[in-house]
Amino acid sequence: MGGDHGPSVTLPACRAFLAAHPAAELILVGRAEVLAEAALWPRCRVVTASEVVEMDDPIEVALRRKKDSSLRVAVTQVKADANGVSQAQACVSAGNTGALMAVSRYVLKTLEGIDRPAIATVMPNERDGFTTVLDLGANVDCTAEHLLQFAVMGSALVAAIAGKEDPSVGLLNIGEEAIKGSETIKQAAELLRAAAASGHLNFHGNVEGNDIFKGTTDIVVCDGFVGNVALKTSEGLASMLSKFVKQEFTRSIFTKLAALMALPVLKALQARVDHRRYNGAALLGLRGLVFKSHGSADAFAFEQALNRAYDAARNGLLDRVHDRILDTLAAMPAAPKPADSIAADVA
Amino acid sequence: MGGDHGPSVTLPACRAFLAAHPAAELILVGRAEVLAEAALWPRCRVVTASEVVEMDDPIEVALRRKKDSSLRVAVTQVKADANGVSQAQACVSAGNTGALMAVSRYVLKTLEGIDRPAIATVMPNERDGFTTVLDLGANVDCTAEHLLQFAVMGSALVAAIAGKEDPSVGLLNIGEEAIKGSETIKQAAELLRAAAASGHLNFHGNVEGNDIFKGTTDIVVCDGFVGNVALKTSEGLASMLSKFVKQEFTRSIFTKLAALMALPVLKALQARVDHRRYNGAALLGLRGLVFKSHGSADAFAFEQALNRAYDAARNGLLDRVHDRILDTLAAMPAAPKPADSIAADVA
Repeated sequence: MGGDHGPSVTLPACRAFLAAHPAAELILVGRAEVLAEAALWPRCRVVTASEVVEMDDPIEVALRRKKDSSLRVAVTQVKADANGVSQAQACVSAGNTGALMAVSRYVLKTLEGIDRPAIATVMPNERDGFTTVLDLGANVDCTAEHLLQFAVMGSALVAAIAGKEDPSVGLLNIGEEAIKGSETIKQAAELLRAAAASGHLNFHGNVEGNDIFKGTTDIVVCDGFVGNVALKTSEGLASMLSKFVKQEFTRSIFTKLAALMALPVLKALQARVDHRRYNGAALLGLRGLVFKSHGSADAFAFEQALNRAYDAARNGLLDRVHDRILDTLAAMPAAPKPADSIAADVA
Repeated sequence: MGGDHGPSVTLPACRAFLAAHPAAELILVGRAEVLAEAALWPRCRVVTASEVVEMDDPIEVALRRKKDSSLRVAVTQVKADANGVSQAQACVSAGNTGALMAVSRYVLKTLEGIDRPAIATVMPNERDGFTTVLDLGANVDCTAEHLLQFAVMGSALVAAIAGKEDPSVGLLNIGEEAIKGSETIKQAAELLRAAAASGHLNFHGNVEGNDIFKGTTDIVVCDGFVGNVALKTSEGLASMLSKFVKQEFTRSIFTKLAALMALPVLKALQARVDHRRYNGAALLGLRGLVFKSHGSADAFAFEQALNRAYDAARNGLLDRVHDRILDTLAAMPAAPKPADSIAADVA
């Protein structure tokens, strides 16, 4: 029901997804009248929910008031019952991100060893592959331990979706302009090096903002504030450039003719950087798989989010995150407790 | 002497700058043998310095060992003597950023009311203007007070260089993906609102990464870590897109023909987003004007940095920053001292 366009986008995407994946089954969650037709599709089941979380609803409304929202009921489908069985293996929503994260966290809880769930997305890179970046805004003011957890979860995600068992991890830091790096980043680098030394992580070292698009590492880890700014800044630049291209090619009859000549090239370029192909951010660290589609996604983009969730579920992302995080934490040297540090400072 | 290309770039830029500005005078600082020819130019004087700070020299080397470096001697030219007189009104360097900031801070000291100098640069925006962003990496772990100082210094910079006396300021924050904003940002927003209420700042409110390129505000304020990541990420995306454009247009004889047809449009596009036009970051908050050219600048780009420094000096940037910061701080409600907060917490 969510997203800027609601079922007019999500339903055609679901139909295309079912056609492309003969073994897949869908549970559609929302208002009965909207889903009546879809209820007749093969391998498709409808679970009704009477309410809808609006894109501008405060988190509190989604969490406390709209208890029969499609968002909440959908998330509940991936929650395991007492026997460890869930109705669905992954949940996809184009709805309000803050609400989706809060409800997912409340309904599913975090995995053992994870303090905070993170949001991971992929961005295209020069190598014609993609770079997985997390966190994208779920967490501000992260500690070094959180960044380690993000690195492990990101590794599990890339292993599950891209089939790369030992993906490289870069820690986002600042370059030569830095008088000095932040303390948290330095501590995080130490933790990541320790995890790499015990064979639990393929840690490349520090990377800078441009390395995201260079594809220097498979994964770039950062706190949610920084990740969100990097993502939004990139979107802003891409949008500006796209407007400039349109303006320049429509300036006169001559430039329009040039555009016509260059059309196949421009189309190839557009396809190559089409952000819709990368739609579907993973909410990682929960006891259930939840994927977030961009709110403005069209049917093609929403279908990619479905594909991503499907691949993650098929390839056991949930167990991978669970196993990787516990293995890594077990191998880490014991961290000093906060109480110890205070005692040391006072002493 | 600095930058990736040294005098082979800076000397032609200086010559062009002198030709374009009949009232300007230059002091060139560096090795005598390199500057012998330039010493004969009109309105040009040479001050020799026997050492050069290399691009990869640690800050300590620039600060403690190479005391006769061209970088240090150049910065010293803008330092006021006991009578308030300096040899130069602005200093421009393409050298090592960390070294330039450290040496400038050591030689010039910060202005009254400024805790930390900041680095400000401009980025192009959709409105065909530019957005001034600071800090770009001089400061990580900023407090709310630092962000306020950046806002005031940025306002002085835009007033001096763009002639806009009341430029709008946005505080870089994260969007709907945020479960909550960071505490520092919230406090900074309060300080900025207070400064706006007393008429000392044109505070627009929070902005997101994409607003930099939308041109929502004249100035975007953020801590150095975030600013550096935003800048480097943008550079990375621009570089990737530029490579993709080249690759697609050179793929076959047909696409090469299309490129030929589209050449005037591609050239217009390139000129419109040419980052060389925006070269010349300001080191703000020091008792002297220092501008940093990109290390990889060519002669055209370095000349823009000279132009920027010249405009800043002509339009009294130093006094503007000094006056604005003292006026703003005088009008601010007294902040609780850290000791008070601790007492309150304990109570």
